[in-house]
Amino acid sequence: MVSVRLLDDVAIEDLAVGATVLGTGGGGDPYLGKLMAINSIKQKGPVRLLSLKEIPDDALLVPVAMMGSPTVLVEKLPKGDEALKSLSMIEAKVGKKVFAVASAEAGGVNSTIPLAVAAQLGLPVADADGMGRAFPEIQMTSYHLYGIRASPFAMSDEKGNSVLLDTISNKWIEWISRAVTVVMGGSAIIALYPMTGREFKEACVPNTLTFAQKIGETIRLSKQNRQDPVENLLKLVHGFKLFKGKIIDVSRRTTGGFARGEAIIEGIDESKGSKLKLNFQNENLIAIRDDKVVATVPDLITLLECETGLPVTTEGLKYGYRVFVTGIPCNPVWRTPKGIETVGPRYFGYDIDYRPVEELINR
Amino acid sequence: MVSVRLLDDVAIEDLAVGATVLGTGGGGDPYLGKLMAINSIKQKGPVRLLSLKEIPDDALLVPVAMMGSPTVLVEKLPKGDEALKSLSMIEAKVGKKVFAVASAEAGGVNSTIPLAVAAQLGLPVADADGMGRAFPEIQMTSYHLYGIRASPFAMSDEKGNSVLLDTISNKWIEWISRAVTVVMGGSAIIALYPMTGREFKEACVPNTLTFAQKIGETIRLSKQNRQDPVENLLKLVHGFKLFKGKIIDVSRRTTGGFARGEAIIEGIDESKGSKLKLNFQNENLIAIRDDKVVATVPDLITLLECETGLPVTTEGLKYGYRVFVTGIPCNPVWRTPKGIETVGPRYFGYDIDYRPVEELINR
Repeated sequence: MVSVRLLDDVAIEDLAVGATVLGTGGGGDPYLGKLMAINSIKQKGPVRLLSLKEIPDDALLVPVAMMGSPTVLVEKLPKGDEALKSLSMIEAKVGKKVFAVASAEAGGVNSTIPLAVAAQLGLPVADADGMGRAFPEIQMTSYHLYGIRASPFAMSDEKGNSVLLDTISNKWIEWISRAVTVVMGGSAIIALYPMTGREFKEACVPNTLTFAQKIGETIRLSKQNRQDPVENLLKLVHGFKLFKGKIIDVSRRTTGGFARGEAIIEGIDESKGSKLKLNFQNENLIAIRDDKVVATVPDLITLLECETGLPVTTEGLKYGYRVFVTGIPCNPVWRTPKGIETVGPRYFGYDIDYRPVEELINR
Repeated sequence: MVSVRLLDDVAIEDLAVGATVLGTGGGGDPYLGKLMAINSIKQKGPVRLLSLKEIPDDALLVPVAMMGSPTVLVEKLPKGDEALKSLSMIEAKVGKKVFAVASAEAGGVNSTIPLAVAAQLGLPVADADGMGRAFPEIQMTSYHLYGIRASPFAMSDEKGNSVLLDTISNKWIEWISRAVTVVMGGSAIIALYPMTGREFKEACVPNTLTFAQKIGETIRLSKQNRQDPVENLLKLVHGFKLFKGKIIDVSRRTTGGFARGEAIIEGIDESKGSKLKLNFQNENLIAIRDDKVVATVPDLITLLECETGLPVTTEGLKYGYRVFVTGIPCNPVWRTPKGIETVGPRYFGYDIDYRPVEELINR
């Protein structure tokens, strides 16, 4: 990577698609995310992507993100200044200017909102995030695993309301901010986990923006070159095809500020005769094929459209879609005991021990 | 009133009892409120009560209060530093030091919390509040009627969590802070409606602390002098006996951060043969005697124990209590069109036009 990297429209489009692959169903719609970032860059100029070694130890890094149900965001667009407002609340509280914006998670919106904000403020974006994927709750970050506080935590809505939280634990941030998100109408734009450059470099999942861009580029070029996008993609991310099928049932409800539900996928071709059940809470959590668990959080479960290789988000799940269900090993930080405790299947209420997807696939 | 007035233990005990009369069932338990104030004053020294004319126009006045269901507060005591924390969040946001603490409403706790805070900070307390009674929601203040913003609005809980809100309307403060209160466990200590001395003097309901103390003193001295406390009290507040009875049924639920419910009171003596139904949401809202409305918000409906004349709060309603149901005309500010719109019976979902208690009683 060169030391100054500016993102153009194609790069952002690739990044939004690739981040949606990492978003495992959540993290927001890539079309929306792309528009937000490209629009800001058109108005304010290009965004510089920062590699970790360019970040000073004493700099202030602040991730920004969309919080809430992605199903809501589709119909309730941000006004545009919410992230700036949330960021400036953090600056006022910390008493320091933000050096660079960062991502909380990878996702179609949550990887691109930082770009939009960075463009508007003329700041760089750190090439990293706090998950290497998307998860539904605030404390589910590598930042949290490294002991960094999510407080002060700022949230703003499109109506002009804002809230600043300071709590005794990151779980308390999750509980209070989730209730506020619901009252705000189901989504909010947040700034959180303010940290020093030193903390960020230790606790982040590095290079996820570059990686997301590479994933998006692979899908795009595969189609252009008439290659199989799914095969090329899975090679790049060291992932596995778990199932091929047609979505025959989706049940979905937006409760407690989350999009929860399940999809039933009926096998076709090599999966014919089987069924796969997919449970989600914003993100895909568990895939069960004919009563056999084939992948669980924290490994990534991503649905890719058979024809295009494009990722399908949980709010985009529809009857009749033909998809590959894929499994991608998560960042090693999530396979530690604290990682499993924070985001393993038992945390989400499933009576299942976590086993890595590469083990499950070889049973 | 002399220009320097310090409150001693007896004055505070009287004030807490009198404020509970004005609290119309809500505003907190006087025993708890008294303890909190006396405890702080013992530790830190006396509190000076400020008359309005002693408040400079450019001073910063900030009311502090308990928010949530009074039923919860009885079992979930404040830790002691929540109000200080909430106040200092406001100071940091406004960029100015608090000149004097004020009350948001009259009530056993909400008239005495300002005294406790003032003692701890060595600040005076303004002799006024924002209702002249208690109401269940944030926008239900004379401050609101005069166009003052409840934002910035700070809340803290006994665990150490704090939240600062800034919203586009006072109703949005109510909606968001109510959800936060529920997550915090049903109660929180808040600082709100920061305003200048000039605004405060225009928008407050003046002299309520002195008035509450006078009410408490009247009840205490009546008993001491073997006079009828209820008669003496009603003379002082220009109130009416609406009913005398025995509580025979109380249904109560804590939902959405409020204590809601109703009590059925069976007539005794002069009310024999009648029944009175009392609806409440933290505060008493409506009294209906044999299908005839005898008093509604915004007029004060207060239950007084027959023997002692002491006020009964909604969380203290119990089978077998013998009570006078009394009606007291509210402050004129509530009888304006905006006042009725904000706190009249229709706001609370009752299909009833407001009529002043003194008219209803003479029908």
